Amino acid sequence: MIRIAVDGMGGDYAPQVIVDGAVRAANDFDHIEVVLVGQEEALKRELKKHKLTGGKLTVRHASEVVTMEDTPVAAIKKKKDSSIAVCIDLLQKREVDAVVSAGNTGAAVAAATLRLGMLKGVRRPGIAISTPSLQGMSIVMDVGANLNPSANELLHYAIMASVCAKSILKKRNPSVGLLNIGEEECKGTEVIQEAHKLLRDSNLNFIGNIEGRDFFNGKADCIVCDGFVGNVVLKLLESVLETSKILVKRNMQKNPLSYLGAYFMKPAIKSVLEDINYEEAGGAPLLGVDGTVIIGHGISSAKAIRNAIRKAGEFVSTGVNEQIVDVIANLKSSAPTQGQDGKINAGSV
Amino acid sequence: MIRIAVDGMGGDYAPQVIVDGAVRAANDFDHIEVVLVGQEEALKRELKKHKLTGGKLTVRHASEVVTMEDTPVAAIKKKKDSSIAVCIDLLQKREVDAVVSAGNTGAAVAAATLRLGMLKGVRRPGIAISTPSLQGMSIVMDVGANLNPSANELLHYAIMASVCAKSILKKRNPSVGLLNIGEEECKGTEVIQEAHKLLRDSNLNFIGNIEGRDFFNGKADCIVCDGFVGNVVLKLLESVLETSKILVKRNMQKNPLSYLGAYFMKPAIKSVLEDINYEEAGGAPLLGVDGTVIIGHGISSAKAIRNAIRKAGEFVSTGVNEQIVDVIANLKSSAPTQGQDGKINAGSV
Repeated sequence: MIRIAVDGMGGDYAPQVIVDGAVRAANDFDHIEVVLVGQEEALKRELKKHKLTGGKLTVRHASEVVTMEDTPVAAIKKKKDSSIAVCIDLLQKREVDAVVSAGNTGAAVAAATLRLGMLKGVRRPGIAISTPSLQGMSIVMDVGANLNPSANELLHYAIMASVCAKSILKKRNPSVGLLNIGEEECKGTEVIQEAHKLLRDSNLNFIGNIEGRDFFNGKADCIVCDGFVGNVVLKLLESVLETSKILVKRNMQKNPLSYLGAYFMKPAIKSVLEDINYEEAGGAPLLGVDGTVIIGHGISSAKAIRNAIRKAGEFVSTGVNEQIVDVIANLKSSAPTQGQDGKINAGSV
Repeated sequence: MIRIAVDGMGGDYAPQVIVDGAVRAANDFDHIEVVLVGQEEALKRELKKHKLTGGKLTVRHASEVVTMEDTPVAAIKKKKDSSIAVCIDLLQKREVDAVVSAGNTGAAVAAATLRLGMLKGVRRPGIAISTPSLQGMSIVMDVGANLNPSANELLHYAIMASVCAKSILKKRNPSVGLLNIGEEECKGTEVIQEAHKLLRDSNLNFIGNIEGRDFFNGKADCIVCDGFVGNVVLKLLESVLETSKILVKRNMQKNPLSYLGAYFMKPAIKSVLEDINYEEAGGAPLLGVDGTVIIGHGISSAKAIRNAIRKAGEFVSTGVNEQIVDVIANLKSSAPTQGQDGKINAGSV
């Protein structure tokens, strides 16, 4: 049995959709036990609306709630009994195997960094998402944990993304691209140029700089970037689908015959939609911390929460964290990689 | 007659497509005279392939070529007789009214900044593009001239974008959004948080932070961002169309009846394509320098070059630069806005 703590108070529609998603996960996945963390009264009120048909789900009280307006440091210092802090504490004491939170990302990153500590050799955590391209799935890292990574931190993101691409996407020798404003080595900020050198000299399968257009063509299995641009791109990608639907519909209204066409094209369009449905993924792992933490979107639906819980369960059994430690210990790069400063300077998404 | 200098050697397919595009513009636009700048022999060889049916087109020799690998500073210091340097010189001497270049963006930005100087009150230039949304067009600035803008430079980009939205997109009171990783004021880097305060205290129609998903929904008429994230997003947006076509086609092959549907949907799909055809725009103005400089994509086609030349002609008559100087002179913000350091630190796209 895998035990997963779920932050019941984190997310734009918490606790309603979180409780709904947690019940769905408990009902659907026999091997998962859900520990729902948050204000007991509110959670139990929501639980009454749903039917638990199987599996295990328990409630763990936490008196405080971190809001989206709280800065990460304030959230951690002032709200010691928040739902996210209690989730991370349970993981730190190994009372659970993983944590899922769709709340304030900065607070989750800060709590995880401080309480769980970092994997040996890693300095700063990052969030890795998988995104569909014309060649299959790619990993993008970081998408919001670290807004100003150093060159060395970008190298670490490349390593962590590469391990994920091997373990989870089953790519044999994952290619790594550095997101930049041009293909040439001389392009980009000083940090990006320095990261380019570190990546070139590493034993990763580095294919050089890639650009905005390369998200869709699948040029790289792993796309390395800072958390600011990664977050902007992630949210843009997620909106492409909705926008296309509105645009096609709007233009169809100008020409009624299109409706007939749409009827016949439905299977093709539906298939495209399934390819790029982000709700299926549910959440993204926070990599680099010593434990499994899955970060969900603030706007997560119940289905997304259910899938984030499933993903947390899968992630626990992959051994990704152990592999990251191994690769970093054997790093051929000349750059300093040991040590951790434990500084909280996490971005807040 | 409006005289426009065209950098004949700048662009991934130069000089072929540049000459082709220049001839098309000379033939199509009676009020425009094209001065094609570059290696005379190469340009004349290309010119022989085309028929000049009307309009004026002259060739101006420049012996050197700036490549995509040259850094901006090296390009300016070492290649004083390059096609882009000669173009900018012609504009500085007012022998032409505008410059169009699809070459090394960093070199064009550096040359323009140094030789033309800045508009009074502006410190750093930025590139503004217009992009389609569900509500019409929006302006995004900067998309690659300045990779690390200060908060005050971001305020200036907001002002310049706002003037463009009024003058060119005919929006009465253009809304301004600051691209960030969340809606809350506390989100983002220190520079972004500081820019948020400057924008809030300005007399612009500032609507707060916007996110990646807001590029398509048209939440803001002007989207303000640094040149790194702006460039990545621009190239990503441009690739959406191509990707959608491939995806729909691929999925249609799984279901032959879809072809019938596609036939009927053609008008609707074609209409969508026209809405988001970036080739039509041709190029984007470099705002903040004292003169009209239109930056084209490295991958510009002949059609895009033709349209960039048309755009340069339109821009000359808008009076955008005079309006920018006016607005900045009347700025209510407490931040320092006067002075210019003339530093070349331009990003290179």
